[in-house]
Amino acid sequence: MAGDPLPVAQALIRCASVTPADAGAMAVLEGALAPLGFDCTRLRFGETENLFAIRRSGGNGPHLCFAGHTDVVPPGEGWRHGPFEAALEDGILYGRGAVDMKGGVAAFVAAAADAVADGTADRGTLSFLITGDEEGEATDGTTRVLDWMAENHLVPDMCLVGEPTSKARLGDTIKVGRRGSVSAAITVLGTQGHVAYPERADNPVHRLVRVLHRLAAEPLDAGTDWFQPSTLQVTTVDVGNAAGNIVPAQAAARLNIRFNDTHTAASLEAWIRGILAEEAPRHEARFSCSGEAFLTKPGPFVEALRRAVRDATGEEGALDTGGGTSDARFITRLCPVAELGAVGTTMHKVDECTPVEELRRLSLLYGAVIRECLG
Amino acid sequence: MAGDPLPVAQALIRCASVTPADAGAMAVLEGALAPLGFDCTRLRFGETENLFAIRRSGGNGPHLCFAGHTDVVPPGEGWRHGPFEAALEDGILYGRGAVDMKGGVAAFVAAAADAVADGTADRGTLSFLITGDEEGEATDGTTRVLDWMAENHLVPDMCLVGEPTSKARLGDTIKVGRRGSVSAAITVLGTQGHVAYPERADNPVHRLVRVLHRLAAEPLDAGTDWFQPSTLQVTTVDVGNAAGNIVPAQAAARLNIRFNDTHTAASLEAWIRGILAEEAPRHEARFSCSGEAFLTKPGPFVEALRRAVRDATGEEGALDTGGGTSDARFITRLCPVAELGAVGTTMHKVDECTPVEELRRLSLLYGAVIRECLG
Repeated sequence: MAGDPLPVAQALIRCASVTPADAGAMAVLEGALAPLGFDCTRLRFGETENLFAIRRSGGNGPHLCFAGHTDVVPPGEGWRHGPFEAALEDGILYGRGAVDMKGGVAAFVAAAADAVADGTADRGTLSFLITGDEEGEATDGTTRVLDWMAENHLVPDMCLVGEPTSKARLGDTIKVGRRGSVSAAITVLGTQGHVAYPERADNPVHRLVRVLHRLAAEPLDAGTDWFQPSTLQVTTVDVGNAAGNIVPAQAAARLNIRFNDTHTAASLEAWIRGILAEEAPRHEARFSCSGEAFLTKPGPFVEALRRAVRDATGEEGALDTGGGTSDARFITRLCPVAELGAVGTTMHKVDECTPVEELRRLSLLYGAVIRECLG
Repeated sequence: MAGDPLPVAQALIRCASVTPADAGAMAVLEGALAPLGFDCTRLRFGETENLFAIRRSGGNGPHLCFAGHTDVVPPGEGWRHGPFEAALEDGILYGRGAVDMKGGVAAFVAAAADAVADGTADRGTLSFLITGDEEGEATDGTTRVLDWMAENHLVPDMCLVGEPTSKARLGDTIKVGRRGSVSAAITVLGTQGHVAYPERADNPVHRLVRVLHRLAAEPLDAGTDWFQPSTLQVTTVDVGNAAGNIVPAQAAARLNIRFNDTHTAASLEAWIRGILAEEAPRHEARFSCSGEAFLTKPGPFVEALRRAVRDATGEEGALDTGGGTSDARFITRLCPVAELGAVGTTMHKVDECTPVEELRRLSLLYGAVIRECLG
């Protein structure tokens, strides 16, 4: 029988590592990985604990990295079992992180143990990039570990992120891309005046409406073979003028764009700045990008993942680019990256849980991934 | 020499009749008008004192009504003389209402005294419609006195409003119309959701932007021979959504339209409701009209005023429809109405004042108006 992910999963859940707290989670992983021959390096950035663990084979085989996180979102109230108890009931493991994604991390640890035991691991290099800052700001986590890996010539050939991507059945979905996200805060300046004499005023609301109308009127694109169309949403407009006979002096709006790989944060900013220059020359605008779009097109890595899914689960592993952002947005700049993991229906909810049998099936799936990727 | 408006002007200014207070102002007028043969009726609506005074001739001559108000806006701070002292300095009368429009009321009283003295008043009927609620809500003032006048068969043939319409020199401007004013408060309802899944949400900001863009994109009209173009100003848009990843549930805006006589409040409301129905079927909208547009086209009354201006001042009396609203908006439903009065530069300001000589010239101008109108 394969190595059992349950003990490590329970040990991790019992660390109350609500982001960005570590609460001993990295030590649990070091304790599991070091005996398997992994060199473990703890990387502390700001308040965040991160761990990079690597096991090199003697040869020139490929380097597969597993990326994951041990921090979790706050548990909330009303659990049937304590969120950090890791209770078992009727074959189901309860606890914050059971799905997202302490369960996934434990499953890959167990798969790595199997791969070490049966010699598969010796065909290449395996590594773990584990962060404690994925659910939070993500500024002291994966992105900084990647910088450190690049500086130390530890760039992998491919990377699997263990996020719970499966929709209904384990392996039904492989995430090969994510849309990017850019936000803008715009303030249009005008000239205050009386509504009866608009020729002496310059209404910033009218200018802002023209800007927003142009931004929202046309689709950003029609989507691609891999991505749904990019979308722009104005999330707020605020003027706060209580005087019904006064043209206000300024008007503010915020918007967010989820964009596919036909755009970049920079190209979208340039587009918006161009419209602002035309419609509202006097303005202030701030832009922030929480992640560029990424896409790992079908190729050897994605094909290896699909074969592994087919072997281990019988599923087809549909390629998908939907949903929010993940740390894969950072990893894409170093190597091909994809996401594959548990069924995510209980993630972030009260009574987050996974059947133990599912956890073991995930471990077998990850074992197949290691076999396929290390060739 | 003509009757002197100064004593009545000073007596009125010494009544601290900040809207809607009367502070004895109507009693001052009754004291001046009753001896001239005017029947005085005090009309109290809500907290507002109003006065209707009428002097009928024996014959069937025309009925000229003078409309004005004795309430004033608050004085504010920093006057060189007390705002209710009616101080004279170097031939200038200082005080709140000196221009707007206790001075004008006093000037017409003096002109009426002259007209009684020389028999001109006997060629027709003179009346005064004086309200204490012009600077405030105007709900218990002129509009209700007009209802009472209509019920009592006291509708005049023409009405002069004594607002300070002159721009640089007495008589340079006769106001023969005013734009109307209608306001709207619109709330567009949508469906809240996450910005990453806009297909599951219905962004009310986008709908509101489309509505406002359509409202503001095209001119309402090109103006007329008598009016400048109507104008629409969006005065505020407020969503108040602090969450940058959430599509909000509703979005609100307010706007004001100053419109000429090619529109009515009802036609504008119907236009806006039509656009709302198309772009934002789920909405709430409230409309309020503070006055319809009015226009007294050139005709016997306006020509009489121009002759009076030419005779008394040598000015041409340019016909104008600019500026805000006045009680003429109510009077227009009963009879031809126009506005003619002092130079308004100090109205509503600290140190509101008028040269006594100007007040006397205004009285002579009003005397000419009585002569021309009772013809």
